[in-house]
Amino acid sequence: MDKLNLDQHISRQFNEDLEEIKTSMLEMGGLVEMQVGDAIRALEDADSRLAERVIEVESRIDEMEMDIDETCTTLIARRQPAASDLRLVTAVSKTIRDLERIGDEAQKIAKMAIKLSEEGEAPRGYTEVRHIGNCVRKMLNDSLDAFSRFDAEAAIATMKEDRQVDMDYKSALREMITYMMEDPRSISRSMNILWALRSLERVGDHAKNICEHIVYLVQGRDIRHRGPDA
Amino acid sequence: MDKLNLDQHISRQFNEDLEEIKTSMLEMGGLVEMQVGDAIRALEDADSRLAERVIEVESRIDEMEMDIDETCTTLIARRQPAASDLRLVTAVSKTIRDLERIGDEAQKIAKMAIKLSEEGEAPRGYTEVRHIGNCVRKMLNDSLDAFSRFDAEAAIATMKEDRQVDMDYKSALREMITYMMEDPRSISRSMNILWALRSLERVGDHAKNICEHIVYLVQGRDIRHRGPDA
Repeated sequence: MDKLNLDQHISRQFNEDLEEIKTSMLEMGGLVEMQVGDAIRALEDADSRLAERVIEVESRIDEMEMDIDETCTTLIARRQPAASDLRLVTAVSKTIRDLERIGDEAQKIAKMAIKLSEEGEAPRGYTEVRHIGNCVRKMLNDSLDAFSRFDAEAAIATMKEDRQVDMDYKSALREMITYMMEDPRSISRSMNILWALRSLERVGDHAKNICEHIVYLVQGRDIRHRGPDA
Repeated sequence: MDKLNLDQHISRQFNEDLEEIKTSMLEMGGLVEMQVGDAIRALEDADSRLAERVIEVESRIDEMEMDIDETCTTLIARRQPAASDLRLVTAVSKTIRDLERIGDEAQKIAKMAIKLSEEGEAPRGYTEVRHIGNCVRKMLNDSLDAFSRFDAEAAIATMKEDRQVDMDYKSALREMITYMMEDPRSISRSMNILWALRSLERVGDHAKNICEHIVYLVQGRDIRHRGPDA
């Protein structure tokens, strides 16, 4: 575990426990990444089958969150970690909550995909979904990568990308509202795209949160609500 | 502290520390409740001044979250709590995160209030805002009350209310979409109401999360993702 001096433990078991929660978290992260990708693809292709699969897999993510969370609590109770060990457990515990929320957003996008496959495609908005989808998927991937390497600088760089996502999201919203005014019959279908865009923007927020947990873990600084420049 | 047998501690200071994080959390909860109420009122009255105040107070809530969170971490490191003590610290730490998110939603509603005071009132949707607003404010109040009394039964009863909120929210959404189709010129203003409704629905979700933390605290059961009937 580079870039972070975790306390040296007399107990090898303790080291293994710490490694294990990190590994489980990254595994959960991998699955969540896949869910986001699949949900976007289901929306783009109006593929209700793929969307159904995303919804099914969601319960596995929920279980993973609860399992890892329990392991974290047990580890605190048994090993009484301090300093960077405790920060690692805390950061993992918080990160899995964000990952679970990202999973929720993927599920919401999948539900919109099913609606669109029933009601027919929306007239517009797919380019925006693809663009913002790619941005937040990259943010999520980079944040998990930064966690695995305990790389606070990479985390800060990733956090900064959220600003552009927010701007692109706002601009996409404005365009969608304009389309809806021009073609009121498409409002219901356009709203599905709008909710999907909203979910993607939330994925970016959660990836940013994960980056904040990494900075806390590595540097011991709580930079929430202060922005990456603090 | 009734209904929960917190470990008896030799150190009076430890007891005081545990009481303190609970009290701080309830104080933060009180402020968040006020924020939600003010945000709804600002929206209903198109009162941009009140809305600005909600946005200002938000930073105080953020600070409270960070302070309490730090106290929780220090308490774990110094006192090495176990069993119900550790569950209390964990439950507080998770609850303040939900409270902070509720504060965020209040801020979002306040921003919609400012937009509506600029663009002019939306033609419809205020009845729905008031109704759903009252439901989720009650949920939030009841959940904080249940926490202060360590009352898992009350928490479970409060959780169940979220179903009705979700149904009312979905029905309000459908109505708003119908209005927008009938009067496309109002889409932009109606969207502000729609986002506010969405935020209120999220407040209900977070109040439900707080109830789940209470059940975990009192009974040691993790009932997330399982529903109140589990």
